[in-house]
Amino acid sequence: MRSMRLRTFAINARLAKDTILIGDLALSRVLLMNDARFPWLVLVPRIDGAQEVFDLSTGDQQRLITETALCAQRLKMLTSAGKINIGALGNLVPQLHVHVVARGPGDDAWPGPVWGFGSPNPYPQAEADALVARLRDVLDI
Amino acid sequence: MRSMRLRTFAINARLAKDTILIGDLALSRVLLMNDARFPWLVLVPRIDGAQEVFDLSTGDQQRLITETALCAQRLKMLTSAGKINIGALGNLVPQLHVHVVARGPGDDAWPGPVWGFGSPNPYPQAEADALVARLRDVLDI
Repeated sequence: MRSMRLRTFAINARLAKDTILIGDLALSRVLLMNDARFPWLVLVPRIDGAQEVFDLSTGDQQRLITETALCAQRLKMLTSAGKINIGALGNLVPQLHVHVVARGPGDDAWPGPVWGFGSPNPYPQAEADALVARLRDVLDI
Repeated sequence: MRSMRLRTFAINARLAKDTILIGDLALSRVLLMNDARFPWLVLVPRIDGAQEVFDLSTGDQQRLITETALCAQRLKMLTSAGKINIGALGNLVPQLHVHVVARGPGDDAWPGPVWGFGSPNPYPQAEADALVARLRDVLDI
């Protein structure tokens, strides 16, 4: 059953449009938000139909927090950010996804949340390529 | 060591001022945000000094996601909300805390985030008392 569910998994179209693929951890696909204002990862558990954290099995909830903590720690290390913001909202994109965002007093939205703040500023291609390569390296994916 | 750390635990003064005590789960103290605009819980792991999810041990991370999912599921059930928003920001309050907020198209901030949105609207005392009693009941604390 699980492998059948995995085969039907696809990233929500809006999420796919707004992000760049980094790679897959054990449970989650990891994406980079294409917004140079904030170093910003999105984790999408590859479980078809999940919309809330409690839709996941206990084991998958534990995998999700482990992977979220890993991404948070590595993103903080990579960016020297003072704070990591974590959020699972889903008001616009129903597919369960977890935001992991590097924040600090110098950023555009500080101390407010990034969600719904202004308009994304896409990365220049070379900058996106370099950042994705560094993220794959620190996340070992 | 653990019991010493637990003895030194105290809720951040700003969090304490903005919330009403519901009770303690195995890891987290559960608070009700005193804001009648949104049914809104805050979980504070009773681990002195923790600021990021990755500051917690693996076991405590797992307890935190279990308790977050429990609060989310029970709050959704109690309020019939269409969506639960979960967030660990900490841009203003450094003590690690997790927001669990019942959301829906009818609410004041929809579809934007609640953090930093307008000003809190404190509950009338009788309404707060009744809601806290119902939350203690559904969370079994």
